[in-house]
Amino acid sequence: MKNENQNQTPPLFRKKRMPSRTSDEFVKGVLQQNRTMLAQTITLIESGSPADVLLAQDVLRQLLPYTGKSIRIGVTGPPGAGKSTLIETLGTYLCGCGFKIAALSIDPSSPRAKGSILGDKTRMEKLARHPQAFIRPSPSKGALGGVARKTREAMLVCEAAGYDVIIVETVGVGQSETAVRAMVDFFLLLQMIDAGDELQGIKKGVIELADAILIHKADGKNRQAARQLQVAFNQWLHLIQPATTGWQTKAYTGSSLCNEGIRELWDVIRDFKRETLRTGTFERRRADQAIDWMQTTIKEELQARFYANRKVQEAWPAIEAAVGSGSLPVRQAVSELLDLFLSSHRDKRDVEEK
Amino acid sequence: MKNENQNQTPPLFRKKRMPSRTSDEFVKGVLQQNRTMLAQTITLIESGSPADVLLAQDVLRQLLPYTGKSIRIGVTGPPGAGKSTLIETLGTYLCGCGFKIAALSIDPSSPRAKGSILGDKTRMEKLARHPQAFIRPSPSKGALGGVARKTREAMLVCEAAGYDVIIVETVGVGQSETAVRAMVDFFLLLQMIDAGDELQGIKKGVIELADAILIHKADGKNRQAARQLQVAFNQWLHLIQPATTGWQTKAYTGSSLCNEGIRELWDVIRDFKRETLRTGTFERRRADQAIDWMQTTIKEELQARFYANRKVQEAWPAIEAAVGSGSLPVRQAVSELLDLFLSSHRDKRDVEEK
Repeated sequence: MKNENQNQTPPLFRKKRMPSRTSDEFVKGVLQQNRTMLAQTITLIESGSPADVLLAQDVLRQLLPYTGKSIRIGVTGPPGAGKSTLIETLGTYLCGCGFKIAALSIDPSSPRAKGSILGDKTRMEKLARHPQAFIRPSPSKGALGGVARKTREAMLVCEAAGYDVIIVETVGVGQSETAVRAMVDFFLLLQMIDAGDELQGIKKGVIELADAILIHKADGKNRQAARQLQVAFNQWLHLIQPATTGWQTKAYTGSSLCNEGIRELWDVIRDFKRETLRTGTFERRRADQAIDWMQTTIKEELQARFYANRKVQEAWPAIEAAVGSGSLPVRQAVSELLDLFLSSHRDKRDVEEK
Repeated sequence: MKNENQNQTPPLFRKKRMPSRTSDEFVKGVLQQNRTMLAQTITLIESGSPADVLLAQDVLRQLLPYTGKSIRIGVTGPPGAGKSTLIETLGTYLCGCGFKIAALSIDPSSPRAKGSILGDKTRMEKLARHPQAFIRPSPSKGALGGVARKTREAMLVCEAAGYDVIIVETVGVGQSETAVRAMVDFFLLLQMIDAGDELQGIKKGVIELADAILIHKADGKNRQAARQLQVAFNQWLHLIQPATTGWQTKAYTGSSLCNEGIRELWDVIRDFKRETLRTGTFERRRADQAIDWMQTTIKEELQARFYANRKVQEAWPAIEAAVGSGSLPVRQAVSELLDLFLSSHRDKRDVEEK
């Protein structure tokens, strides 16, 4: 289970995890666009240890003024649609244009194993070697909420480190499409031609989140079928509410293999940014996203602090048994547990509760 | 700002709602099987006013030893499958057998209006008039969580009032199937024959929750088609994981109009109860349901108290604006709000926060 995100490594490797640094060192390193410091700052953000949590909060606070200047692009699509290939091709093209590209991902389903990192690195081999690109796999373990928070904060750190384009990929299946949509400006759905029955598998809801649909692998003998699918999608897209007010979602065709439609895709993204900036939709969505994010974090943090509370933990087994056996009403159990939790804050706050 | 804990009845009706009573009066009335007191106790439980919350908690605590002796049946199915008709027919049959029947419902989608209560009464006209039956429409408005809690507690009160069979119906479409499954012993899915395309609309997930499928309205010229559908369902049900360990979910046919298959349905439910009691699944599920319930309530209650907290409410507008404009990091905003919330409990607890 060796991996780059050192906080996730087994205890044996933890001690030499990283040198203890001050928040100023992290901030300075990120602003100086030092890749090692960028990676270590993301590791800090992913950490759950009480000291790291406080440090990370301070670092994020200091970096905030330098964030927000990128375009944030989400990429989703069914397995086999070629998400990583597209990100590599688009990313390499954009590096060639002089941009700095960060590729992040969200994968709440599986703990990150060695295979999956190698997978990521191998899949985006060319992009990974590019000095203007930074690739970071999904933070491992935990519920979607926690994984999404870490990715969202990693995105902010990358922005502070001067990355112009942030691409967040959904990995695996699951509910991560909505989580990614909630953190990006532009949401791209990849489709493939040979989907057959799998087209049924694409949730209609995901199409409604998309700002563009790219029919990918539209090369060789797939070209004709891709055009037909494009027409069908466009007819349908005219009937549904667009994901972004004032922007008509359309279907496009492209091939990473043949490097076709990539530049055109970037033109679409630039048009989208210009148009939504003009109408104010761009800034409004970012503000709404931040506030939604705050509410989600409040919900998670309240629960995390509750279940980490020592008094709650001490009382839990007996209360759980009494509720399970039907001798204690749920309402009363909750009331007692909440009283324990809240009254424990009457005294000096305990740092371990974080 | 969301607040589930506001009083649920419309302001006009609030004042004359009910006379002020002590918890002993409520408890005594319910245990004496007084229908008026049963209805008033459920109204108390549905109330969100601080005084009522404390009173309801005390009433529930005293009633708890008298709960749990019923069989709890959930009924779901697409609109038009005849859920109310079936409940009326089954309920009337069971009243005839000497049982006391309570019919509750969960409808998170629509606020309770006068029309919908009348609707319920009209739909189950015969059952509503029966002295052994008690019909209570869905608690109104608010998120599914709050509605489900109230229905679950109403179920407990009905049990304490001596009702032998509690039937909880899902009304409208939405996510209420899972909420009902989480509070009943036996979950019945109604299907109809002429569903046509609508069969696609039935979520496969709902079928996986069912302990029995009743193909309803299997009368007249529908008989043959119902049998065919029954065979198809049974073949498929053998391939999926049953909803209840050790119990094979099967499809049955029935008609409320012709009073066919109703007694057989009751036989299935009795077999289910006997078998799951024997294997211990019955009690285990009830224990698990109570603990899940507690965790759900904790989550909701933490948020309700947070958003109802005066210090949080005072600080909210400025913090929301700062987060929306990007000048305050979400993590820090949450930290500040949680500190405000938790520190407010250092002083004497404020009853209004409930």
